[in-house]
Amino acid sequence: MLNWKYVFYTMSVLLIVESVFLFISSGISLIYGEDDFKFFIQAVAITLSSGGIIYLFTNNCSKEIGKREAFVVVSLVWVVFSIFGALPFLLGGYIPNFTDAFFETMSGFTTTGASIINDIEALPHGILFWRSLTHLLGGMGILVLTVAILPIFGFGGMAMFNAEAAGITTDKLHPRIKETAQRLWGIYMLLIGIETIFLVLGKMSLFDAVCHSFGTLASGGFSTKNSSIADYSPYIQYVIIVFMILAGTNFTLHYFAIKGKFSKIWKNEEFRVFLGLIAVVTAIISFTLIYVDHGPVEKSFRDALFQVTSIITSTGFVSADYTAWHPYLGFLIFGLMFTGACVGSTSGGVKILRHLLLFKNSILEFKRMIHPSAVLPVRYKKEMVHKDVIFKILAFVILYFMVFFLGSFAMTLIGLDVTSSMGAVATTMGGIGPGLGSVGPMNNFAAVPDAGKWVLSFLMLLGRLELFTVLIIFVPSFWKNQ
Amino acid sequence: MLNWKYVFYTMSVLLIVESVFLFISSGISLIYGEDDFKFFIQAVAITLSSGGIIYLFTNNCSKEIGKREAFVVVSLVWVVFSIFGALPFLLGGYIPNFTDAFFETMSGFTTTGASIINDIEALPHGILFWRSLTHLLGGMGILVLTVAILPIFGFGGMAMFNAEAAGITTDKLHPRIKETAQRLWGIYMLLIGIETIFLVLGKMSLFDAVCHSFGTLASGGFSTKNSSIADYSPYIQYVIIVFMILAGTNFTLHYFAIKGKFSKIWKNEEFRVFLGLIAVVTAIISFTLIYVDHGPVEKSFRDALFQVTSIITSTGFVSADYTAWHPYLGFLIFGLMFTGACVGSTSGGVKILRHLLLFKNSILEFKRMIHPSAVLPVRYKKEMVHKDVIFKILAFVILYFMVFFLGSFAMTLIGLDVTSSMGAVATTMGGIGPGLGSVGPMNNFAAVPDAGKWVLSFLMLLGRLELFTVLIIFVPSFWKNQ
Repeated sequence: MLNWKYVFYTMSVLLIVESVFLFISSGISLIYGEDDFKFFIQAVAITLSSGGIIYLFTNNCSKEIGKREAFVVVSLVWVVFSIFGALPFLLGGYIPNFTDAFFETMSGFTTTGASIINDIEALPHGILFWRSLTHLLGGMGILVLTVAILPIFGFGGMAMFNAEAAGITTDKLHPRIKETAQRLWGIYMLLIGIETIFLVLGKMSLFDAVCHSFGTLASGGFSTKNSSIADYSPYIQYVIIVFMILAGTNFTLHYFAIKGKFSKIWKNEEFRVFLGLIAVVTAIISFTLIYVDHGPVEKSFRDALFQVTSIITSTGFVSADYTAWHPYLGFLIFGLMFTGACVGSTSGGVKILRHLLLFKNSILEFKRMIHPSAVLPVRYKKEMVHKDVIFKILAFVILYFMVFFLGSFAMTLIGLDVTSSMGAVATTMGGIGPGLGSVGPMNNFAAVPDAGKWVLSFLMLLGRLELFTVLIIFVPSFWKNQ
Repeated sequence: MLNWKYVFYTMSVLLIVESVFLFISSGISLIYGEDDFKFFIQAVAITLSSGGIIYLFTNNCSKEIGKREAFVVVSLVWVVFSIFGALPFLLGGYIPNFTDAFFETMSGFTTTGASIINDIEALPHGILFWRSLTHLLGGMGILVLTVAILPIFGFGGMAMFNAEAAGITTDKLHPRIKETAQRLWGIYMLLIGIETIFLVLGKMSLFDAVCHSFGTLASGGFSTKNSSIADYSPYIQYVIIVFMILAGTNFTLHYFAIKGKFSKIWKNEEFRVFLGLIAVVTAIISFTLIYVDHGPVEKSFRDALFQVTSIITSTGFVSADYTAWHPYLGFLIFGLMFTGACVGSTSGGVKILRHLLLFKNSILEFKRMIHPSAVLPVRYKKEMVHKDVIFKILAFVILYFMVFFLGSFAMTLIGLDVTSSMGAVATTMGGIGPGLGSVGPMNNFAAVPDAGKWVLSFLMLLGRLELFTVLIIFVPSFWKNQ
């Protein structure tokens, strides 16, 4: 039997945490003297009392948990957070219906950044702050999960919970997770602080700077402006480019940087491929915009670099309409929706390390055909990668494409055209934000039918938790007694 | 060193074989008294003399061959056949330029059926017959390769040349290959004969019946009519549906049928999934055409069944414009371009057995997460499938999608829109014929720029030979001394 009491207990603790962040947002409303204050206080009351009551009934639960409890907690927390996190939008009528409010909040917590709000600038500051705060929390959540918690369960941020972990007591895990989490939190907040300073130096208001920094470091993409980053100065766009790249970098590399171990950073193959990919695709797009379309040199380069970085890191800020570019550039951007950035970053999608290992494996498959009896393992950073790891990555990518195909089919069934469907599914699974066609960078998700918003919300969750963690809950044998 | 002399020797023998079939086509011209006769005789002269001269210089070669020679021969023969097979089109000016003629012939030999000819009905009978004859030869070629030759190299039609096969003398292989090939040839010609009779009974002319039977059993798709099968009677359409299904069935099952072992047929999981998939997708499409679009019941069902069967078996005959259907049905058809039919048939694409094994493996991946220490192998027909086989299939499918993505990008670069690019690449890699958008079922490939025709010709070859066989030739270590 699943230890449901423990699951509820964890949810109650996390709800109390969420109510604290809702309370912080109410402070922003108070500062600006806007009427969303009372809705935040209502949301805090509901969330805190819900959390408190559940806590009282469940805090005497057994802390002995297995993998199943971990899977359920990890999947459920995003749903529960999104339900309660939607309260300020709903209570204040800023987003009048639950489907939209849930979509927007799930998009925030999964750091996707796909929005259904048509006039963002009409929202009060507290609401805008809360919207960006969901990014901050979601980005931190995924970092703690993939860098601090999962390796203890036996895996380093590549797949989830693969090792035997039944019967681990949470008490034992606590100190190690806590230490890593604090370190991550430190780096994360430090980078947000530095970006905020740089943005303010570029004459962005402090409020907008903070919100955009949350959106950048979380690889989120919610902006406080209707035109996203398009109307900001080139300086601000370059600052955001740099910090999107930092957000897409494995956070252990930031730790190395702080410790001065720069050689370790450059030795990281995934990081080099990440930068190389940005450089190559930016070059192709810049070349077309400058020499084929005769655009202004610096702006063309900046537009290319910004859009490429934003999509590859799954941030989703926009400074130019890539769907208006040549079809082959649009296709390249569509392809980038499947790459993702580095493992152990806040970015979503498949991640470059997986692609890199599969690419190496494909090359080796040819060599294996020539020398069938030779043992030819994939090597990463000069170390042998066990065939089982490659096998799991292959299975993951195939499953990713299966979900992508089924999701796209579902969206066409709901009524979107094929391009928009594929764009919507790729961008939500990848945690990016803007898609193609009717959900392209110059549009948003407001016009998607309700059923489609639920499908896409589910896909955001699936993508964020790398499929297996969520889908396994739907496998009957998961629930069988073991 | 590669035994080049042996490679040329094999080519010379095969060219002499090709000249025989060109000569047969000249007979058709003679019967109809059309002026393509002289062009066929010229083509025979060129092909036969080329083959003969090379034969004289190479028939004293060592018959000791390894895998490398096999890979090179298998890839090269389709190219050489397409070059010489294009002669009648070129010499007679029926297709004035080499790119188009090569594309059309490669499309014939790979049993793709994608055409660049705008007015098919304007062609003389000899040329039409030769066009369909390329299907017959290509279909037979792939059957012999995958059912008779490859298993001897250690594998049953799933991957190619995976087992150790260096140093096998062709003399030893000869009797076994010959026996299986004769049996296949018998079944193949028998089915073609039966279909021809059924088509003639439906008042199709004998000439058209023969050509369409070639196109059906080879999973080809070249028709002798501009409207493909659309203007034929429902009876004829149903006959073709049945024989498309037979062409997409593993040919060893036909052998079982002849021997009366029907239980073996029904125990074949892949065959059941093949029929089940056709039934399910046909039901979805029929339902939409009948209840949503209020189409006539029988015709809607027939259109659905015909198009689904034609695409899934990679034949590519057309009786209705699926691009005019609801977008979600178009998306389903696009999905079917990646399924293929059964292993050991004349159909192209990924093949259902691979999908089936990967699907089973994906389900097991979840169970493996729950029970990490349990050994959970994929089972097919109650037998264990070795993990290495699954690994190779995973690598194949990933490579298939990589080639699909790069090919689509190349086509957008050449100037096609994204939908047409993806459709053109999916349909040529899968050996189907009609694509989407500007290369949809009501159009053809005439308007594709030359560079695009070369890319697509290469993709037809890649798809037909299941990627690795061709691509391995481009791997440097393939050429290193071993």
